[in-house]
Amino acid sequence: MHSIDQFRDFFITYLEKQTITKEPENLYEPIAYILGLGGKRIRPLLTLMATEVFNGDYKKALPAAMAVEVFHNFSLVHDDIMDAAPLRRGNVTVHEKWGVNTGILSGDAMLILAYQYFEQYEPAIFMQLAKLFSKTALEVCEGQQWDVDYETRDDVTIPEYLKMIEYKTAVLVAAAMKMGAIVAETSVENADLIYEFGLNLGLAFQLQDDYLDAFGDPETFGKQVGGDIIENKKTYLYLKALAFSSNEEASQLQDLFSLHLEDSSAKIEAVKEIFNTSGSSKATQEAIHDYTFKAFETLEKMNIECDKKDLLRAFGENLMGRKV
Amino acid sequence: MHSIDQFRDFFITYLEKQTITKEPENLYEPIAYILGLGGKRIRPLLTLMATEVFNGDYKKALPAAMAVEVFHNFSLVHDDIMDAAPLRRGNVTVHEKWGVNTGILSGDAMLILAYQYFEQYEPAIFMQLAKLFSKTALEVCEGQQWDVDYETRDDVTIPEYLKMIEYKTAVLVAAAMKMGAIVAETSVENADLIYEFGLNLGLAFQLQDDYLDAFGDPETFGKQVGGDIIENKKTYLYLKALAFSSNEEASQLQDLFSLHLEDSSAKIEAVKEIFNTSGSSKATQEAIHDYTFKAFETLEKMNIECDKKDLLRAFGENLMGRKV
Repeated sequence: MHSIDQFRDFFITYLEKQTITKEPENLYEPIAYILGLGGKRIRPLLTLMATEVFNGDYKKALPAAMAVEVFHNFSLVHDDIMDAAPLRRGNVTVHEKWGVNTGILSGDAMLILAYQYFEQYEPAIFMQLAKLFSKTALEVCEGQQWDVDYETRDDVTIPEYLKMIEYKTAVLVAAAMKMGAIVAETSVENADLIYEFGLNLGLAFQLQDDYLDAFGDPETFGKQVGGDIIENKKTYLYLKALAFSSNEEASQLQDLFSLHLEDSSAKIEAVKEIFNTSGSSKATQEAIHDYTFKAFETLEKMNIECDKKDLLRAFGENLMGRKV
Repeated sequence: MHSIDQFRDFFITYLEKQTITKEPENLYEPIAYILGLGGKRIRPLLTLMATEVFNGDYKKALPAAMAVEVFHNFSLVHDDIMDAAPLRRGNVTVHEKWGVNTGILSGDAMLILAYQYFEQYEPAIFMQLAKLFSKTALEVCEGQQWDVDYETRDDVTIPEYLKMIEYKTAVLVAAAMKMGAIVAETSVENADLIYEFGLNLGLAFQLQDDYLDAFGDPETFGKQVGGDIIENKKTYLYLKALAFSSNEEASQLQDLFSLHLEDSSAKIEAVKEIFNTSGSSKATQEAIHDYTFKAFETLEKMNIECDKKDLLRAFGENLMGRKV
């Protein structure tokens, strides 16, 4: 088996060989730009890794991995328009650089380009990949719509929130891995199990992202710590804190989450205090642990060599940044 | 063979049976809304007709016809955002009714839903349809980008303009017909010929649209006559008039096409006068005739019964609204 870093290198080498820039320039230049901004390339790397886990040739999985990465970047371009985000990975967003119309149109083209990468497979594999891709892509849109809807709702439940992050984030991680299974032509059982593995790991990852947004180390987190609190984002931490609080404490938290301040440092500290005293921080860490454990449980049922299971487990532990 | 009106009825009955409205409502309601606004349903009808022309069962073509119509409506939703259009088919546009973000996201979902309609075919047919669809969809995006680019360019050539309308409009008409050929499993030659037929008819149709926008009967044209002139749109009529004019006449026309007036009636009359005296009107009518003739020529090469050719010719004549 190759290492995570090797898979990432294989993917980046493949990505850099793609000739995205065609005519009209104003359509394709933004696509090359966003794909060139970097990022951890976790999703495509998972497709390559999954292929090798099921004894397939990772090289055969490169087009599918590319489709996943192009789709992920499509969703970033359109989400950044919806969030009016000025920056992405430390660079100006596509719509800031080229305008909203180009952002919409280049995004549309990327969604189509993603499908085209599957054309390098024979019809039976093509159809399996494209079906999984369409189902997943639609779920990502649904998750994004829920996210938008929840911004203006005060009665979002924990199950609703979990469903939202499952659709918005986890299904693509799961599908990326299942695509590797499809390319490797492993059993349907194995393909479904790696999907489960990816789904639970994706959920754990997103909850960890919520947690670190409040309690992460500013040196290593990458994003602004406290960003979700500044933006009054109803994360798992927030919803759990509300659920665990007395009426009085709950309305204090709700009041804090109606503020838009110049300097949010006092607000951030007050909210984090509530997250801790309410038991929400602990509950979030437990949920992260539970989803990671659930992911590892599905490994047991998988019909693959033990060293492959060890590798997937090591990847999970590495991703979650701690031993569980 | 069924008649055009029958094919339209078959399609509308199928369309109305689709359950588009799912959760989240804010994602799917706009989709049901735009698909329910009507329109002539020409593209899906062509898919059904082409299937029967090649001795296939039109019923088998309904999902492919639906994919074409969903894609066409996707492009309307996103184009209306880009054009900041308040109205579509006499009703408020999706982004006016639900906001730009919902317009972007519902459009994205429609593009994916279109692909999902192909899943009702077996792998070999699925792949042929999805490949043709991706190629076509990408060309439509490219055509739209050129259209946007040409708005701010003063040196657009006639070949560039023709390529733009080919990609933005004609390829989808052509692909709609070729999908019928694919569903009917006719020969590759026939499939390519019906594509050629659709492409040339699509070009003739768009040029006729340009022509009627200036010279159409306000009673029957459907859109505001003179709309392109009011918006200073560089259509075939305009580009041909420039090409046929002396320097002095050309700069007069360019001056007229820099005006944004409250009351454009005098401008419209002046521009139409130039279109007529320069020979541009006549050249446009000739181009419409030539593309229609080219479409009918490809019919001769098609390996189908004569009555099928007659039907396609009758459809073309009907669409162009005149005997050629």
